[in-house]
Amino acid sequence: MRDNAPLRTDAVVIGAGPVGLFQAFQLGLQEVGVHVVDGLPYAGGQCAALYPDKYIYDLPALPGCSGEELAQRLLQQLAPLRVPVHLGQVVSALERLPADADARSPRFRLQTDGGLTFECRAVVIAAGVGAFLPRKVPVPELQAWEGRQVYYHDLPPAQWVGQRVVVMGGTEAAARLALTLAQGNAAHVTLLHRNDRFVIDAPLDEELQSAIGAGWIRLCLGQPVGAIATDDGRLEALEIATADDRRLALPLDLLLPRLGLSPRLGPIAEWGLALERKHLVVETAGYQTSEPGIHAVGDVNTYPGKRKLIVCGFHEATLAAFAIAQALRPDERIALEYTTTSTRLQRLLGVVDGAGGQASGTRRIGTGA
Amino acid sequence: MRDNAPLRTDAVVIGAGPVGLFQAFQLGLQEVGVHVVDGLPYAGGQCAALYPDKYIYDLPALPGCSGEELAQRLLQQLAPLRVPVHLGQVVSALERLPADADARSPRFRLQTDGGLTFECRAVVIAAGVGAFLPRKVPVPELQAWEGRQVYYHDLPPAQWVGQRVVVMGGTEAAARLALTLAQGNAAHVTLLHRNDRFVIDAPLDEELQSAIGAGWIRLCLGQPVGAIATDDGRLEALEIATADDRRLALPLDLLLPRLGLSPRLGPIAEWGLALERKHLVVETAGYQTSEPGIHAVGDVNTYPGKRKLIVCGFHEATLAAFAIAQALRPDERIALEYTTTSTRLQRLLGVVDGAGGQASGTRRIGTGA
Repeated sequence: MRDNAPLRTDAVVIGAGPVGLFQAFQLGLQEVGVHVVDGLPYAGGQCAALYPDKYIYDLPALPGCSGEELAQRLLQQLAPLRVPVHLGQVVSALERLPADADARSPRFRLQTDGGLTFECRAVVIAAGVGAFLPRKVPVPELQAWEGRQVYYHDLPPAQWVGQRVVVMGGTEAAARLALTLAQGNAAHVTLLHRNDRFVIDAPLDEELQSAIGAGWIRLCLGQPVGAIATDDGRLEALEIATADDRRLALPLDLLLPRLGLSPRLGPIAEWGLALERKHLVVETAGYQTSEPGIHAVGDVNTYPGKRKLIVCGFHEATLAAFAIAQALRPDERIALEYTTTSTRLQRLLGVVDGAGGQASGTRRIGTGA
Repeated sequence: MRDNAPLRTDAVVIGAGPVGLFQAFQLGLQEVGVHVVDGLPYAGGQCAALYPDKYIYDLPALPGCSGEELAQRLLQQLAPLRVPVHLGQVVSALERLPADADARSPRFRLQTDGGLTFECRAVVIAAGVGAFLPRKVPVPELQAWEGRQVYYHDLPPAQWVGQRVVVMGGTEAAARLALTLAQGNAAHVTLLHRNDRFVIDAPLDEELQSAIGAGWIRLCLGQPVGAIATDDGRLEALEIATADDRRLALPLDLLLPRLGLSPRLGPIAEWGLALERKHLVVETAGYQTSEPGIHAVGDVNTYPGKRKLIVCGFHEATLAAFAIAQALRPDERIALEYTTTSTRLQRLLGVVDGAGGQASGTRRIGTGA
């Protein structure tokens, strides 16, 4: 655990999917200080992770927009507000700080698995279906070697030189990693998968077949059912159950599972917030959860009539932003302003309304009869 | 009143502003038959009527979009669903039909001032700040001559030939109409306005000044305070109070007030629906008013936390569409479908998802060791 000074801000948004990004935009328009955190290494959430090339047809006034384009458009819209977005880290802990009469002092402390600490007065959970975490090998003993011989994340090439490496999975990531290793300086590369079906496109398929044909990659079909350790506690081999029901030991130095991403509500489920079928229960005036100061917007929440659509998350984020701004400035009445006319909002967004000089103005004309 | 057969449909949307158009889109996706009615002669509502050239900066994923562009984008999105949009007519009456056990039989009858009659099972009021109706001359007696000598709407040129016409107002519409009449065959054209300030742009101003200078248009500065009638009931003159406090009679055959549009909730306020400060009270699961089957979305409604933003109206319209579809098909569970994956929705929208053939597929590779 790195030692670090906490980042103090008004609000933290958990999730950089479309709704989390728009939440940050709406908070920014309210001049609420905000940071965004997301477990994925890029912004856009499900849209960017699951269907970047697929088109969405029901976003208002965007007759056809890909998941990737949606993320880019929202990032472009957010850019003038200069909101820090912390990627590749999951919020692992949330605690309420001792009560304080001062409306500006922090009420919550958040920590990420990347070593960041935030102190803030409001939290918005826009975590969608949860954090997208690497799917784990269903052999619990392997957890003991995570970060030593078992790696779910990329590791520097120097670490695999001369090693016997097992890549596991039928994904594109698994195939690409096996090919990279085979072309590098690994001693042996084995690609382990439960059957011969790979979810990859034709050119990659061909490349993989040639590498297997040439003996650079060994293909092993079966499922890991146990781990074999040396006396000094090193992982020595995986115990594999083959399709024809034999057992075999697959010796290795490194295991690199690439089984895809799996969304998990993760630590959020343990924060004591009211849940209904794994969704956070909110009210619909400010989309606050059962815990004052903690809001939930988008696919992660539930309320009467809830439908998991992006357009609904945009509305929820908007009202949550007003509620948060009001809670932060209790003595002020947070009025509605329109971006078409408000110079404050236009200044924040770095735009000048072009209509000022070109349209109608008041002019006097002579009183000739 | 024209005699006509009622148009039978599932739902009628009152208002073709951004939220009304998106409401029709969402109902169309649910395969609910829908007609849209609006008092303006064009779609787009306030955006198109009040700020076509002004930019909106807070529509999600549309970093800058003019009111006109927004209307066009929504019409483009709606086009494949072929929803009839009836413009230039205000819904003037709404009545509940006798109760009927059949879930498909109409519950409401609506009439427009354009002579249309609808019979439907659900009504969505997306009327914004109300219908944009011509602002009336503040001389109540004049109402008696509406449609005979006083016209708030365009009238065929043949009607003004040889007539003494008074155009009233300081708007662009007033100036343009006066110029058109002066270039036509009216006997006299007077432009009546309370002062010499006109809300018009420079080229039009110049044109108007020349016409006044040349004597084609007479300018009269003052305010009408009464009507002078002949014994046989014709409107003979307006009584005018001038700025220097004199009274004068302005003789005329036709009065064409062009005082701008004024939003009025109009007949909607008399339908017996629960109101709070002139807004329709709704619940937030399906945005239904106090009257089952009548929903209200966008600026016309109110509920705890309500903010009059387009993004909120889009959400309200979405949930209202689900609620209406569910009420129309009580034995079915209306499930959520995504336009990214649902072939039903893609067929409705006339799109083919391009991602089908290009992305990943399942392929077998050889089991060579």
